[in-house]
Amino acid sequence: MPDPIRYAQQYRETHLAELMAFLRIPSISAQPKHQEDVQKAAQWLADAMQKVGLENVKVIKTEGHPLLYADWLHAGKNAPTVLVYGHYDVQPAEPFDLWATPPFEPTIRDDYLYARGSSDDKGQAYIHVKAVESYLRSDGRLPVNVKFIVEGEEESGGESLSAFIPKNKKLLKADVALISDTAIVSPDQPAIVYGLRGMAYMLLDVTGPGRDLHSGSFGGGVNNPLNVLGHIIAKLKDEQGHILIPGFYDDVRPLTAEERDLISQFHPDEEAWLKETGAPQAWGEPAYTLVERLGARPTLDVNGIIGGYTGPGAKTVLPATVHAKISMRLVPDQEPMAIARSFTRYVQQLAPPSVKIKVQTLNTAVASVTDWKIPAMQAAASAYEQVFGQKPVYTREGGSIPVVSEFKQHLGLETVLMGFGLAGDQIHAPNERFYIPNFFRGVETAVHFLAEYGK
Amino acid sequence: MPDPIRYAQQYRETHLAELMAFLRIPSISAQPKHQEDVQKAAQWLADAMQKVGLENVKVIKTEGHPLLYADWLHAGKNAPTVLVYGHYDVQPAEPFDLWATPPFEPTIRDDYLYARGSSDDKGQAYIHVKAVESYLRSDGRLPVNVKFIVEGEEESGGESLSAFIPKNKKLLKADVALISDTAIVSPDQPAIVYGLRGMAYMLLDVTGPGRDLHSGSFGGGVNNPLNVLGHIIAKLKDEQGHILIPGFYDDVRPLTAEERDLISQFHPDEEAWLKETGAPQAWGEPAYTLVERLGARPTLDVNGIIGGYTGPGAKTVLPATVHAKISMRLVPDQEPMAIARSFTRYVQQLAPPSVKIKVQTLNTAVASVTDWKIPAMQAAASAYEQVFGQKPVYTREGGSIPVVSEFKQHLGLETVLMGFGLAGDQIHAPNERFYIPNFFRGVETAVHFLAEYGK
Repeated sequence: MPDPIRYAQQYRETHLAELMAFLRIPSISAQPKHQEDVQKAAQWLADAMQKVGLENVKVIKTEGHPLLYADWLHAGKNAPTVLVYGHYDVQPAEPFDLWATPPFEPTIRDDYLYARGSSDDKGQAYIHVKAVESYLRSDGRLPVNVKFIVEGEEESGGESLSAFIPKNKKLLKADVALISDTAIVSPDQPAIVYGLRGMAYMLLDVTGPGRDLHSGSFGGGVNNPLNVLGHIIAKLKDEQGHILIPGFYDDVRPLTAEERDLISQFHPDEEAWLKETGAPQAWGEPAYTLVERLGARPTLDVNGIIGGYTGPGAKTVLPATVHAKISMRLVPDQEPMAIARSFTRYVQQLAPPSVKIKVQTLNTAVASVTDWKIPAMQAAASAYEQVFGQKPVYTREGGSIPVVSEFKQHLGLETVLMGFGLAGDQIHAPNERFYIPNFFRGVETAVHFLAEYGK
Repeated sequence: MPDPIRYAQQYRETHLAELMAFLRIPSISAQPKHQEDVQKAAQWLADAMQKVGLENVKVIKTEGHPLLYADWLHAGKNAPTVLVYGHYDVQPAEPFDLWATPPFEPTIRDDYLYARGSSDDKGQAYIHVKAVESYLRSDGRLPVNVKFIVEGEEESGGESLSAFIPKNKKLLKADVALISDTAIVSPDQPAIVYGLRGMAYMLLDVTGPGRDLHSGSFGGGVNNPLNVLGHIIAKLKDEQGHILIPGFYDDVRPLTAEERDLISQFHPDEEAWLKETGAPQAWGEPAYTLVERLGARPTLDVNGIIGGYTGPGAKTVLPATVHAKISMRLVPDQEPMAIARSFTRYVQQLAPPSVKIKVQTLNTAVASVTDWKIPAMQAAASAYEQVFGQKPVYTREGGSIPVVSEFKQHLGLETVLMGFGLAGDQIHAPNERFYIPNFFRGVETAVHFLAEYGK
């Protein structure tokens, strides 16, 4: 057994106790009343980094909450550099009365550590600090160079890091990025998220009359923007899930047979999945499996509509302006701004001259897929296998992690998403928890990753 | 000149002064703080009726605001009986700061009397009291029997009258109903509303997942109820205004050539009309004129939608349940409950098995058309012509006046809608007004109506 692994195993309880101290700080970035707590959590983590032997530890002031930087760069000129990302802020904890134990009083029950941030992301981020410690306190050195960038705004916009990255390319220069902020398939089945969908989030306003009209007096003579909106939505995506925007699929990189094989290694329990959604049945493009539809195919969803009279009872209004939020999840090589333009052009064409249309692009994110054969991905796979005794499965996530595309865009980095959470961790919900055996396995996996990547 | 007309002309200023006193009482039925004022207005009108010689004047207690009854039944056994309806309650006056003069301080400017209720409906209802006075104070008798039923809840539901009518068929027995609560075309061009649309108002809930889901994680695998709602709306009515519910038009009484001729006598200024709506252009079924589309053809309008995320910014939610309010305006001989059932059945069929649908019927009203050749309609036409110097045009109104179908259903009465308001009266808005010359003409027209109908 390598020394760092022996060290990690020996100090498990100490590491767990430290994590619990970290979790006691209510670093809720979205709530101004917790601003000092966020600052406190940043300082706590900086001190912890300093203590394990990381160097150049800096709490960096921003317009928002501070960023944290630290590094250890003595692995030698030819050794690669890993940029570890994490976040020390957490989601709000409301509603408090649904927590079995208080969100900021970490409590152990049945191998789980219950606390806000335990899985997302304090617990997972802290794993890498403990892996560094395990190396430096045993071998006295790391097999690769390591940089940490940890933010305090992941749950509230992340603007400070987005502004920081393009201005600090040299500081953050590395060979690969490593993030533990995702879930694996089951306690014993590791998973590597090798793809993330991108996004184009649109706001659509449809205006008919100049003011709300009485639908009795004007209905039949003035077009109704809510009826028009229905027609537009029906023409954006058919009932089988095929998107009808001209050119939408033009740049979609086809799923190769090899990749479909890779994805199909992950067999979720579809019944359990359906139960979790509460939907009457699964749904989507008939030519693709559920896993493919959820991660590897683009989508279009209406996220919200408001218009006309929405109070109790009946009011016969023919509304002036109605609003819809519509987002598209994108896959490589769809270019979000080009998709946003296609959407806008198409919707403008669909609108009859009896209404006016306004389309705005609210958000975009580039989709990413990391080649699962690059050395860092292979190192992660090997590390997982050595600790969990199982090869990881490869999955593509339906959501976006903006920092991944920012690392790619500004630093040219691929990201290895080496998660240790579980789907049942209740992140963003009451009773968030982290499976303690996988906190310990996480530290060992991170140790193995550094070793493998340094070979 | 007949004596009652001479009398009406002689007492114009007195009648106007009385109306102003009536308008000073803020009888806002929807606002509990004005409950005493509503009571006061009822008593004021009862006293005024008593004074002009109406008999059996009763302020009738209800669950809500009082009803007013009065009659004069000495025209002889063979004389017909007219049931005059009106309402003494008014709309709320907010926002007060948009009124040039206070809503309950009646003010005369440029031949208009400005006050809340001046046109809707105190001014128009009072016309009939003054017509009765003009007869009784000159001839000492009326040419027909007259009954009044005046309510105080027209602007807040009208439940008390709805409950009263079926229980008081004998009291309200008459040969025709007469209502002045509508607008004419222009100051000098009278109009008779001979048709009103009916209604079926539906509430539609579409449920996909059991809770709001993240559209990144679940989009593509779970059907989205807002997208489904769009498809349903698109299948309810096509883009030319044709309603697609099976059987929807089966019971629509076709417009005869004679009726289309009748309607076409009314030529609204389409440009002014469009300007009033603020819409980019008029719209609707190509085979029908604007006037026909607005009054004589059934419609379907989405009155409101709410679902998903509707706050500022982007949130990628795949909503659990979304809500739509959808109403259909109906024409003779569409049966509202049958239409509601067709709607429900059709929407249930449209919904894919990946969502659940709930449809509720919130409101229904029966459409009505009064034969413009019956004696009471001819009497109204003749009365208008004698006073205004112009034959009235015949129009069908797009909205519903529930009391008209209740009179028809329970009392078997046709209703003559002999209005004296104008489209620009700003009813339900700040600066409501009534064109004073037409208040005076109204009294004379009502006198002539009684005379003509008694012939």
